[in-house]
Amino acid sequence: MGKIALCPGTYDPVTEGHRDIIRRCCSVFDTVIVAVSENPKKEPLYSLKKRIEFLSKSLTDFKNIEIITFKGLLIDTARKKNAMVIVKGLRAISDFEYELQMAQMNKKLAPEIETFFLVSNPKYAYLSSSAVKEVAGFGGCIKGLIPEEIENDMINSFKNNIFK
Amino acid sequence: MGKIALCPGTYDPVTEGHRDIIRRCCSVFDTVIVAVSENPKKEPLYSLKKRIEFLSKSLTDFKNIEIITFKGLLIDTARKKNAMVIVKGLRAISDFEYELQMAQMNKKLAPEIETFFLVSNPKYAYLSSSAVKEVAGFGGCIKGLIPEEIENDMINSFKNNIFK
Amino acid sequence: MGKIALCPGTYDPVTEGHRDIIRRCCSVFDTVIVAVSENPKKEPLYSLKKRIEFLSKSLTDFKNIEIITFKGLLIDTARKKNAMVIVKGLRAISDFEYELQMAQMNKKLAPEIETFFLVSNPKYAYLSSSAVKEVAGFGGCIKGLIPEEIENDMINSFKNNIFK
Amino acid sequence: MGKIALCPGTYDPVTEGHRDIIRRCCSVFDTVIVAVSENPKKEPLYSLKKRIEFLSKSLTDFKNIEIITFKGLLIDTARKKNAMVIVKGLRAISDFEYELQMAQMNKKLAPEIETFFLVSNPKYAYLSSSAVKEVAGFGGCIKGLIPEEIENDMINSFKNNIFK
Amino acid sequence: MGKIALCPGTYDPVTEGHRDIIRRCCSVFDTVIVAVSENPKKEPLYSLKKRIEFLSKSLTDFKNIEIITFKGLLIDTARKKNAMVIVKGLRAISDFEYELQMAQMNKKLAPEIETFFLVSNPKYAYLSSSAVKEVAGFGGCIKGLIPEEIENDMINSFKNNIFK
Amino acid sequence: MGKIALCPGTYDPVTEGHRDIIRRCCSVFDTVIVAVSENPKKEPLYSLKKRIEFLSKSLTDFKNIEIITFKGLLIDTARKKNAMVIVKGLRAISDFEYELQMAQMNKKLAPEIETFFLVSNPKYAYLSSSAVKEVAGFGGCIKGLIPEEIENDMINSFKNNIFK
Repeated sequence: MGKIALCPGTYDPVTEGHRDIIRRCCSVFDTVIVAVSENPKKEPLYSLKKRIEFLSKSLTDFKNIEIITFKGLLIDTARKKNAMVIVKGLRAISDFEYELQMAQMNKKLAPEIETFFLVSNPKYAYLSSSAVKEVAGFGGCIKGLIPEEIENDMINSFKNNIFK
Repeated sequence: MGKIALCPGTYDPVTEGHRDIIRRCCSVFDTVIVAVSENPKKEPLYSLKKRIEFLSKSLTDFKNIEIITFKGLLIDTARKKNAMVIVKGLRAISDFEYELQMAQMNKKLAPEIETFFLVSNPKYAYLSSSAVKEVAGFGGCIKGLIPEEIENDMINSFKNNIFK
Repeated sequence: MGKIALCPGTYDPVTEGHRDIIRRCCSVFDTVIVAVSENPKKEPLYSLKKRIEFLSKSLTDFKNIEIITFKGLLIDTARKKNAMVIVKGLRAISDFEYELQMAQMNKKLAPEIETFFLVSNPKYAYLSSSAVKEVAGFGGCIKGLIPEEIENDMINSFKNNIFK
Repeated sequence: MGKIALCPGTYDPVTEGHRDIIRRCCSVFDTVIVAVSENPKKEPLYSLKKRIEFLSKSLTDFKNIEIITFKGLLIDTARKKNAMVIVKGLRAISDFEYELQMAQMNKKLAPEIETFFLVSNPKYAYLSSSAVKEVAGFGGCIKGLIPEEIENDMINSFKNNIFK
Repeated sequence: MGKIALCPGTYDPVTEGHRDIIRRCCSVFDTVIVAVSENPKKEPLYSLKKRIEFLSKSLTDFKNIEIITFKGLLIDTARKKNAMVIVKGLRAISDFEYELQMAQMNKKLAPEIETFFLVSNPKYAYLSSSAVKEVAGFGGCIKGLIPEEIENDMINSFKNNIFK
Repeated sequence: MGKIALCPGTYDPVTEGHRDIIRRCCSVFDTVIVAVSENPKKEPLYSLKKRIEFLSKSLTDFKNIEIITFKGLLIDTARKKNAMVIVKGLRAISDFEYELQMAQMNKKLAPEIETFFLVSNPKYAYLSSSAVKEVAGFGGCIKGLIPEEIENDMINSFKNNIFK
């Protein structure tokens, strides 16, 4: 079965920054599980179904991945999927603070699971799902910000105001 | 009457991190006033009554404390209670930035009152009321995160969905 | 026409910190455009009309400014107004992180426009529109926090609960 | 004897920022011990004798202080002087990180002693002994950066290149 | 051969914080190479020989590790040893900034190698080799700061002033 | 004469990051003065002559620049050259803290001069003169890190160990 890593996120929608982190995980671990949060508190713009569809289209070239959804504690999902490692991308200080606290909390709840941090590629350092949505919402150009495979889908979703 | 310190917070609910800060204040000051914010903007999960009940149960061993509620400007409460010092715990950078601005604003409004910062015990560095609530909400183990005295109460409140 | 700089913000309401940044821009650039965001997501307390009125009263001494409103992408407004530079004030780390990401995103969308950062005057380092509103809302003294010209207006708006 | 606080530092030389922190300690604690580090690793510009002389001249109005020198572990000095609290001024993030680590190390070595942090007055936020020395070294104006009482002494020390 | 990770450092000397990171790497990767820097610029207190001796004594229970020395670019060593991953422990913001820049530089020089960050166990968050040396140099108690196996060695080295 | 900006630095040596900042200044201001610090405390690797030679070769395409050297207070040079603005590039938090303090100190010493900060292009975010020197010193590839025009010069300087 090999070494399994978990890449959790809301992916609302997946950005080129997310894809870069997932790609790099795929080159290190035997299996990479992309875990999409169902947590309704975050009030995502895109439906769970749409977010998974976007991920699937964007990750077709990746052979050793599995896309799942999860709710509840992340470490429960990690345990169920035999993932020994949770991988998170880091962009900035504010990310770092929050992620560090989550990593320490998860370490307390599940000492056998490690959280590894990967630093974003500098060219995606300014990218976030919310920034992309803001640009798209104002009709700005999102080329290069999200995977090419979902560019038209995203533009259409804003044109027609349909996010499900 | 001696030297009086004020420990303000929402305490929604009190964590082991809060209790550690209060305990250390009690060893330095003659009287420690634990001031629970009524500020409705924060939309606390637990009612004011419940938050005070949790604090009372958790702080029974502390002889030189008083638990009060407050609304309005913190410095008005500090003045009314003759507190010369406001004490805040610091966990992380993001805390630091916000608390620093509050301290400087309070210094401008009430130059005679000092804000002192205490660094969290490293073992509680990842702890926050919201993290505890998230773990409890998903049925995770909260042992060691909050005072033992309120553990069952908190588990029951989530089981029965009653927070008042 | 000379060199044109854009000072964007919600200005809800303008503070002495904002005015300090605008004043310093006026001494460097030929024209300074104060651009008030109409973005409804921020849910400002004061109406757009009131925010512009407060700015007008506060900036009467500044000869080379123009006050406008904008919606949509900031860089579209900058282009339309021939502004080569966007100027932002920086107070703290958390500002810095967010503003840095915005600046890099705007640079990608409009490579010909530069974002310049000015460090707040230390005496206004703790000031923000929301802190001022909190103090005013609790009846605290706002003298020196906002331009003198709008002090009475702001106190009255809270007394009568009218922000339009 | 009352409550005793320790204000450690190299004080090379004392600045208005230092004096502000010491003044505020004096209003809270019964006795404030200003502890000047002899640690030769820091390679201070001014001799220990000169640094104490500068402090004495600057703190004549403070009735409840004592100036001492120390070497070795800070907590050993705190214990010997019955200080229950170490007080440090905080200016910025980089300060914060280092001081936080020192505070946690000291807490491990001496659990009965607390470290309290005070936020610098914004108007001294940019001040440090090394910045002052750089300005003075280049003949810049140091008025308002250091206590008025030592201004001439400091200017003369640079004029004559005598720091002992 | 399996997946190989590299844990570089000066290890002057190895602390409990270092050992915690190495232990956690050993549970994730098939082989962990502990790479001790010979870089003379850092001017380590302990000789390279002594630092390796301390590491060997401290890591006897770890079966899948190899201790090596390196000079020159870290990525050249990683490539020579077939390590696909460099692992670094993170304690604080200042670490983060420096390590982030190193990781991005290494990514540019060797795109096929990933740098993973692990967050320190909170109980070692205040620990660094230099802090330990400062405490030991002043005769303070270093119990629990460094691996038990080298405690006496380290105390003796300071007693006899022999670090080779 | 128009609007004049000053870009101070040690430029030991100039990197692609420096050149990016200078290029962007040239598009905003009428004249950009690149001011190379003679401050011997920094102990630059390259001689002042060599650093200026590298800058000259790298900036031949820039028509509105002047390269000068300076010692003493930066604001004295700014005043002498009629520069109303000092421009600094910002890469990271640690930069930010230090530069913010310098900007505030300079504002106190020369209230009529503004310091503007420009955020580095993300692709140069990991770049610094010292990182480049470390890579070059170990024989690593510096292509794309420094201006193409000085690549061979820099490689030769390390090969022959001549930096004057």
